Amino acid sequence: MSEETSKPLRRQLAAVALAGGLMTGAAAAEPLGPLTIARQGSFFVGGRSVASDTLSTLPAYAPSGTIAVDQVYVRYQVPVEAKRPPVVLIHGCCLTGKTWETTPDGRMGWDEFFVRAGFPTYVIDQAGRGRSAVDPSAINAVKTGKAAPETLPPVVSAGQEPAWAIFRFGPKYPEVFPGMQFPLEAQGEFWKQMVADWAATLPTPNPTVPALSELAKTLDGAILISHSQSGIYPFQTAALDRAGIRGLVAIEPAACPDPAKDDMAPYRDLPILMLWGDYVELAPRWAPRLKLCRAFVEAANKAGGKAELVLLADVGLKGNSHMLMQDRNSLDVAAWLTAWLDAHVPPRKP
Amino acid sequence: MSEETSKPLRRQLAAVALAGGLMTGAAAAEPLGPLTIARQGSFFVGGRSVASDTLSTLPAYAPSGTIAVDQVYVRYQVPVEAKRPPVVLIHGCCLTGKTWETTPDGRMGWDEFFVRAGFPTYVIDQAGRGRSAVDPSAINAVKTGKAAPETLPPVVSAGQEPAWAIFRFGPKYPEVFPGMQFPLEAQGEFWKQMVADWAATLPTPNPTVPALSELAKTLDGAILISHSQSGIYPFQTAALDRAGIRGLVAIEPAACPDPAKDDMAPYRDLPILMLWGDYVELAPRWAPRLKLCRAFVEAANKAGGKAELVLLADVGLKGNSHMLMQDRNSLDVAAWLTAWLDAHVPPRKP
Repeated sequence: MSEETSKPLRRQLAAVALAGGLMTGAAAAEPLGPLTIARQGSFFVGGRSVASDTLSTLPAYAPSGTIAVDQVYVRYQVPVEAKRPPVVLIHGCCLTGKTWETTPDGRMGWDEFFVRAGFPTYVIDQAGRGRSAVDPSAINAVKTGKAAPETLPPVVSAGQEPAWAIFRFGPKYPEVFPGMQFPLEAQGEFWKQMVADWAATLPTPNPTVPALSELAKTLDGAILISHSQSGIYPFQTAALDRAGIRGLVAIEPAACPDPAKDDMAPYRDLPILMLWGDYVELAPRWAPRLKLCRAFVEAANKAGGKAELVLLADVGLKGNSHMLMQDRNSLDVAAWLTAWLDAHVPPRKP
Repeated sequence: MSEETSKPLRRQLAAVALAGGLMTGAAAAEPLGPLTIARQGSFFVGGRSVASDTLSTLPAYAPSGTIAVDQVYVRYQVPVEAKRPPVVLIHGCCLTGKTWETTPDGRMGWDEFFVRAGFPTYVIDQAGRGRSAVDPSAINAVKTGKAAPETLPPVVSAGQEPAWAIFRFGPKYPEVFPGMQFPLEAQGEFWKQMVADWAATLPTPNPTVPALSELAKTLDGAILISHSQSGIYPFQTAALDRAGIRGLVAIEPAACPDPAKDDMAPYRDLPILMLWGDYVELAPRWAPRLKLCRAFVEAANKAGGKAELVLLADVGLKGNSHMLMQDRNSLDVAAWLTAWLDAHVPPRKP
């Protein structure tokens, strides 16, 4: 994005903040007024039934029976004045929907920001994470000698020291990039957000993908906002079925569609934003991914797409980590994103 | 509870419903007006750091590092007019905080009911469940040949057919008790709420217990409302430290303190309610537990307690399953409970 195009958006930022009663920057520390919502709740999308004979090794619970897996937990709030389209917030690796809630240092999360800005807001736990169930049958099959140890599911927890560089708090643990916006004084609370990750045990595409499609159609139009490991899911969802998808925002995606082998047709005329924080070129894990996403943007636009890649530092927001929705300037980033969405996704369904 | 004492409470129910703008019974199907909250968010209580060399078997994630486990995820909403004390809602086996949210058939959950009734409302995911992390190290230790299969953690999923009788939908799957209030037409959505349960892998007392104590103190006074498998936790919390505990409600507890071996002193002068649904005497899993809880109530009251055991059918609410917070009359039960709390727990801290 050039300085030219970014200027109107920066002006809109202030307007958005004002219109939605939002305070950003230094004012964000001030308490906001009460929040009035039209309705809220939670439900599941997707899921399938699985029969198993190794559900339990405990006498109190029978080993045989049916369970539901691959469903996706969704929690939502709809503002009274829903002047903007629904957004779906999709967390990344080793995390849950908690990603978008209260920041580690206790500030308002994007979940509430978007509601206050007039977006009906849907926060999910990916299939097999958080409140979305996993199947423990393979563990109990090995425990009871019915299967070999190597058949155990590859369940991963990300250690804090190696994750430090992945989240781009610094080049390596415990070094910190100068100007870092992540509230590292509250890192203890952040580490508690991390959970064991079963993504590698799930089929391809991840069951979150068809679930997102179902959700977008149920909402009769939604903007899918992914982060990191979930970055590819909204693209796979659009490739599956464009119905209900009004825009895609990929925040630091771990992968983008590959112009060398993926069809670009599903992305034609679809507002797409790739949003990146700071220090990306300094991170061996992220710099190559940024390059591949630039190649995707170019290819998608050649094929009639409306894709854009933005480094936050280029629009005046500096020092952002990979967890930019929790950084000290997280609400400035959210306000900037709101302005981008206003400029690129029509506020009402056509 | 005698018919005598229940009558004033039944009268209060209507008053509560009116004062809080709540509609119960047949009127519950009507849409409620917008909800205004003073503040909301989420955070963790408790937790500890664990060093591990078997966090991962995937090349993309390092096997060695520190993770946080045993923390408890808490999501809360504080109403603008918080005229009643904070409540903490604690789910049971194989479930998460979703238990208290939108019912399987799409009606308002107790989480919102209590906010609308003026209670600051805190919903947790127990340690090792949902958004509260587990440690997968033991699985990866076996997968990499560093430990024997029998050391695998006893992770349990409850099968739907055996769970049918535990949830008391009927005597056995798929039979249904006459007059059943659970919305069985939406059972598919209910089964999706169930997750794998690591409770048997955790230390005793469950880390949820000290976390509840920390939470009650942070809130400067709270009513702990448990369900089923979590039933014993609030009692263990009170035995650990009475500070911050203003009342206990055990909904169909899987266990009560045992007068034969447990000290009754922690329960002196503490408002305690044991609340049970219908068909309990017909359920071999639950009838003996009811009996043991009756013995506890008697012993606690002899030792200066203020404990009460109520069968909902005795106060005119019939047909309730074990999942009474999701039954068709769930808001009538919540309104009755609100009236009981008003009568037994002072609305303001003394």
